[in-house]
Amino acid sequence: WQKAAFDELNELFAETHPSDIARFLESLPAKQRVIVWKSTEFDRAEVLSYMHDAERAELIHRMGAEEVAAATTEMDTDDAVDLLQTLSEQRVEQVLMAMDEEHRQQLSKVLFYDEDSAGGLMNVDTLTVRGDLSIKVILRYLRRHAELPDKTDALFVVDAENRYRGMLFLADIVTNNPDLLVEDIMSTQITPIPVNMPSQSVALLFEQHGFISVPVIDQDSTLLGRITVDDVLDVIREESDRTLLHRAGLDEEDDMFAPTLSTTWARAVWLGINLLTAFLASYVIGQFENALSQIVALAVLMPIVASMGGIAGTQTLTVMIRGIALGKVSSANAFWLLKKEVAVGVLNGLIWAVVVGIVAMIWFSSIKLGLVIGAAIVINLFFAAFSGMLLPLILKRLSIDPALAGGVILTTVTDVIGFAAFLGLATLWLL
Amino acid sequence: WQKAAFDELNELFAETHPSDIARFLESLPAKQRVIVWKSTEFDRAEVLSYMHDAERAELIHRMGAEEVAAATTEMDTDDAVDLLQTLSEQRVEQVLMAMDEEHRQQLSKVLFYDEDSAGGLMNVDTLTVRGDLSIKVILRYLRRHAELPDKTDALFVVDAENRYRGMLFLADIVTNNPDLLVEDIMSTQITPIPVNMPSQSVALLFEQHGFISVPVIDQDSTLLGRITVDDVLDVIREESDRTLLHRAGLDEEDDMFAPTLSTTWARAVWLGINLLTAFLASYVIGQFENALSQIVALAVLMPIVASMGGIAGTQTLTVMIRGIALGKVSSANAFWLLKKEVAVGVLNGLIWAVVVGIVAMIWFSSIKLGLVIGAAIVINLFFAAFSGMLLPLILKRLSIDPALAGGVILTTVTDVIGFAAFLGLATLWLL
Repeated sequence: WQKAAFDELNELFAETHPSDIARFLESLPAKQRVIVWKSTEFDRAEVLSYMHDAERAELIHRMGAEEVAAATTEMDTDDAVDLLQTLSEQRVEQVLMAMDEEHRQQLSKVLFYDEDSAGGLMNVDTLTVRGDLSIKVILRYLRRHAELPDKTDALFVVDAENRYRGMLFLADIVTNNPDLLVEDIMSTQITPIPVNMPSQSVALLFEQHGFISVPVIDQDSTLLGRITVDDVLDVIREESDRTLLHRAGLDEEDDMFAPTLSTTWARAVWLGINLLTAFLASYVIGQFENALSQIVALAVLMPIVASMGGIAGTQTLTVMIRGIALGKVSSANAFWLLKKEVAVGVLNGLIWAVVVGIVAMIWFSSIKLGLVIGAAIVINLFFAAFSGMLLPLILKRLSIDPALAGGVILTTVTDVIGFAAFLGLATLWLL
Repeated sequence: WQKAAFDELNELFAETHPSDIARFLESLPAKQRVIVWKSTEFDRAEVLSYMHDAERAELIHRMGAEEVAAATTEMDTDDAVDLLQTLSEQRVEQVLMAMDEEHRQQLSKVLFYDEDSAGGLMNVDTLTVRGDLSIKVILRYLRRHAELPDKTDALFVVDAENRYRGMLFLADIVTNNPDLLVEDIMSTQITPIPVNMPSQSVALLFEQHGFISVPVIDQDSTLLGRITVDDVLDVIREESDRTLLHRAGLDEEDDMFAPTLSTTWARAVWLGINLLTAFLASYVIGQFENALSQIVALAVLMPIVASMGGIAGTQTLTVMIRGIALGKVSSANAFWLLKKEVAVGVLNGLIWAVVVGIVAMIWFSSIKLGLVIGAAIVINLFFAAFSGMLLPLILKRLSIDPALAGGVILTTVTDVIGFAAFLGLATLWLL
């Protein structure tokens, strides 16, 4: 890295949107990221607010408390809180002490709420007005304000105790007679969001109703802040990321560009868990050493039975995980779904039992072997559908993420049942 | 289904948001969905626009062209186009003919664009103004309009040829001196979106910049329409859905509540593809019948080698698929990533080679067997990382979705290499 290179980067950064600088930094290996960060100039607060937790952790770690305080006071409340929530309690304390009184109070209020709740998503930069004013007065008031907070599509109407009463949309301000009163044209259609609503439910509400911004209230209906649609975009992206990564046993904070050793360790744990299930399958196979030593064709064919079960079960599991996430599965239709998935499993079991059975008969010139593998496939696909359907429901009841644990447990079931059914039937019919 | 039940549903529907009615319909089995649809009353257009393609296909199929035309003219352009694009060309023709001239022209214009492009996402309900007018005049004009189009955060400023010049935010209208001109306060910061931009890129832009609405232009800068953030929410949700479902070989249009037979058939294809790879693995195992018939422990342990490779490879693959989707992988860092992933693979290979090797030694009282399985695991995890990293890049170059094909090919690689390495080394060292 030459000084000339940094000069060039600085020139480039001057013309680049902070979100693109964030993306550039995230695509650098961790070490180089720190070097570039320290040697170039750009709007630190903006860029940090666009970065993912894992990638910016290292950078924040190297900043002084003063510096972090300066950056966070320039961010939207929710972004600042997001950032602070990744720091140790002691560090947060230091950063808060380095802020001015006003920002400290504002942030402390929101830091109190769970990151994955409406409170953790909200901004406290709401503009509030009273219902008994005329639009003309509101316009006069607004024209004295230099700028509205980002993504303001509406002002919030409150009473004397700051209790939420309705939303006054900018669209209604500009289209209505300025002599009307706020309470005549305010909208009361949007139900305000309770501050402890989980962020996934908030996201579903935004998706269903197409909101831009929604008020957040506490149990006394006091207006606490607002959630805007851009924060919801992040929730949806993170949620889908999480499901995808959890399916492979990866942490959502896994940094593609983290040092080799920390990645190795993070992934080793998952491999270890899966190894336990693989040993279980081996143990089952070991129970049939007698059959295996007499008929070598069993060893050749047995992975087919296990793999078909795994694939079919994963399909059911995936459909269920998505259905649960979209709120499509309820106790009213669960039994119908179970019957359908099991029927699909058995039908597909029959189709492929015939195909695999015939291939096995021809390959090893044994009709009996074909029958054994066919029967084992039907049995395994039946149990695959059964567990693929019920596992996510049970895991959800136990508050375990089905995307994370579902796959491992399912594969264990289909491996064990696949090997046991195939080798067990072979022991009974072929020896 | 009794008449009383429908009366109750009608009462319920009258107080329910259309998006919730849509969700309710989607969670019914296909047959019951049609019955409820035919026997109850609600805002058909609204509910249809909130339903997913697969679930509403059957319902639209049963509506007359007149009925579909009536429903689509009440929808936003982009929702109407979404719906029409799921119909056959002949059917679209019939529906368009059943519309009034104005709607037909409006929809024909947008139908022309690819569903997965900016053109397919846009609404044509833009309000345009000229730059040389004063805010006072604009306000007078707006007050004569009863209502602004849904999700209007800005008007669009165009010249005499309808070429895009800038955005006039409602927030700026209400905060500025009404004597100023539109061109004094209009924003030119947002780069308009070309009509053929892929919808995934549009979504990334919205995520990065936090837009509410963005103008869409053709190559002559003529304003064609606007994209609003709620449509982008759908794109993001669909994209993440697609990745999740493709990983299990499922179609994004797979209907959880479709009839058993159509689901069976849809899934059978994927099972068949995976069966081919399973047969390939069996063929490889078959090459080592001699070793297997002499040492039965090989059959017991061989699934462990294959499964460890599959798990490790899937982790690399998942990280890569996500990195590519988020635009974090480039030719500049690909080589660095390859080195890192291979290093992680080999290190994890070494860790688990020791563990599995020791277990195998003790279980089967054979030091040599432990060494063989350890070596095979290191080899397989090396190739797993290698293919997990390169496969998605190669598939992307070939315009094949890595989420769909990546997993199958990867498992084939790790199965074949796992079995061949383990049984091959065993043949060399143990016989």
